[in-house]
Amino acid sequence: MSELRRDPIIGRWVIINTENPLLPEDYPKEEHIFHQRATCQFCPGRENQTPPEIECVRQPGSAPNTPGWQVRDVANKFPALRIEEQLDKRGVGIFDMVNGVGAHEVVIETPDHFKDMADFSEEELLAVIKVYKARYLGLAQDKRFRYILIFRNFGEEAGASIEHPHSQIIALPMVPKYVLEKINGAKNYFQYRGRSIFTDIIAQEYENEERIITDNESFLAFCPYVPRFSFEFWIIPKDVQENFFDMNEKQQKDLAAIMRNTLSRLKKVLGAPSYNFYIHTAPVNKGRHEGFYWHIEVIPSLGQVAGFEWGTGFYVVHTPPKMAAEYLRSAEV
Amino acid sequence: MSELRRDPIIGRWVIINTENPLLPEDYPKEEHIFHQRATCQFCPGRENQTPPEIECVRQPGSAPNTPGWQVRDVANKFPALRIEEQLDKRGVGIFDMVNGVGAHEVVIETPDHFKDMADFSEEELLAVIKVYKARYLGLAQDKRFRYILIFRNFGEEAGASIEHPHSQIIALPMVPKYVLEKINGAKNYFQYRGRSIFTDIIAQEYENEERIITDNESFLAFCPYVPRFSFEFWIIPKDVQENFFDMNEKQQKDLAAIMRNTLSRLKKVLGAPSYNFYIHTAPVNKGRHEGFYWHIEVIPSLGQVAGFEWGTGFYVVHTPPKMAAEYLRSAEV
Repeated sequence: MSELRRDPIIGRWVIINTENPLLPEDYPKEEHIFHQRATCQFCPGRENQTPPEIECVRQPGSAPNTPGWQVRDVANKFPALRIEEQLDKRGVGIFDMVNGVGAHEVVIETPDHFKDMADFSEEELLAVIKVYKARYLGLAQDKRFRYILIFRNFGEEAGASIEHPHSQIIALPMVPKYVLEKINGAKNYFQYRGRSIFTDIIAQEYENEERIITDNESFLAFCPYVPRFSFEFWIIPKDVQENFFDMNEKQQKDLAAIMRNTLSRLKKVLGAPSYNFYIHTAPVNKGRHEGFYWHIEVIPSLGQVAGFEWGTGFYVVHTPPKMAAEYLRSAEV
Repeated sequence: MSELRRDPIIGRWVIINTENPLLPEDYPKEEHIFHQRATCQFCPGRENQTPPEIECVRQPGSAPNTPGWQVRDVANKFPALRIEEQLDKRGVGIFDMVNGVGAHEVVIETPDHFKDMADFSEEELLAVIKVYKARYLGLAQDKRFRYILIFRNFGEEAGASIEHPHSQIIALPMVPKYVLEKINGAKNYFQYRGRSIFTDIIAQEYENEERIITDNESFLAFCPYVPRFSFEFWIIPKDVQENFFDMNEKQQKDLAAIMRNTLSRLKKVLGAPSYNFYIHTAPVNKGRHEGFYWHIEVIPSLGQVAGFEWGTGFYVVHTPPKMAAEYLRSAEV
């Protein structure tokens, strides 16, 4: 018998295949073949092939846009949205349209074309996190923006078209639907109970224990009771924090540690599957968001989304989160 | 410059790439290689390898579960949900759970393993539509169900794992999120304006003309102003009709004609891309749904959904609907 479960934050239902669950070995193993190295614009020595760097962690004394960097943030050459324009909102008959104002940047995470993020050192991950934070703070200054999304696509199955390790930042003039649903879900819960739903979820996960992967002083990593995808996991601060950019030095180090730890576990258990992650932080230029905790969702690409999912917003999850957490928790890293 | 557009029914934003749109030839051509024929359980002569038929269009005098059929509806051997159980709703800590009660059926659409739906005759399509209608009516009798989704996955990129032409039916004990958002969007609009949003969309499309693919006496096929996917199109009754199963004989024939026409155009323009379609009809056992029109969404699989889409609920559409409609409208079929 399978189970239908409802997400407590946004109300989405999913089907959990508890009857014939898929084990890690049941998913096809992916090979990530690298063949773009010779022409890669993100590799050191080709800094002039990208737009100039906006934010950079580099060796003291090295000149901007030359080798000697560890992490480089640049504008996306083929942006989904452009920053240069005036915001122009209008109606088109019964429809609403806004011109494509926004920002689209690329964070090149390492000079090493072949280095998997799961194999980054904590220092290397910390440098990436610091660039994320700097860009959140920088882009939040632009009053046209309401939301900044940082996300990462790894592997072809997850939609990565460039091999060199990188993440992306998109700033938007509105709060996207999925985030708004979480913000509103958290707000309603807070108004009704005077507590954060995220506080309650974290407490429940610690009580059950069975979906916990690992934790440290600042963060918890767990497989949510209502995932969209098999082996999906979340990384969340243990104490309320609305904004990613509010992290202090200690928290940034702890985040680097838990990201390294969990991404290594994922690689160990599933053999480097393609995955996406994205950071859900509070909207910018919008005041307080009571009851909201920023967090990261990591979603491995282990199956296909088809007509049922597209038609309903339901998802079918073939490895129950309790089982996924057990595999990830037991992996030796 | 790209455009941000907001769906008038459910409020979802998408990014339309109006700056460097992709043309049909820019999408990779798919080859659909058939290699399961020798063992296909859906082929004639292997009727005993599927569960017994529930609904069937077959030659007069031919026995059930033997050859001689045109369309066969059977239970799915590996159902996502099962019909046999008592509905058991409960809380698990702060979470909500329901056991996996539902129905999952397969409509085998033709005896011919290799026949593409785009190449069905109108009579063949009509037979499929009649089986859909019969199963809507049949499953709606079960008072545990709130929603019945009929959908079709064609091609590997769209998640089809079985080659033999078929669609699927899933009955659910709740109304799924995406459908509920449409129902509620239509209801709110109706309460506010006393008109259906679908009536207004259809009027707008006829006024603009530029997104229309084709129409006939009963139906309109058009590329919506706010699609999720490139070359997405909708088929909708021109006059209000909440339920698919309310179609009369004439409407069913017109639906067969417009499905054949539009699927042929899609194949002509894009060379048989993988696609999904699903029918959004009103929930069952729930009273009236004012302002709602049932309709079909056809979504070709022309690109990948990645971290940005999963993290926001935004979609990036690389062929604007106006351009997609122009190609589809101009195709000679």
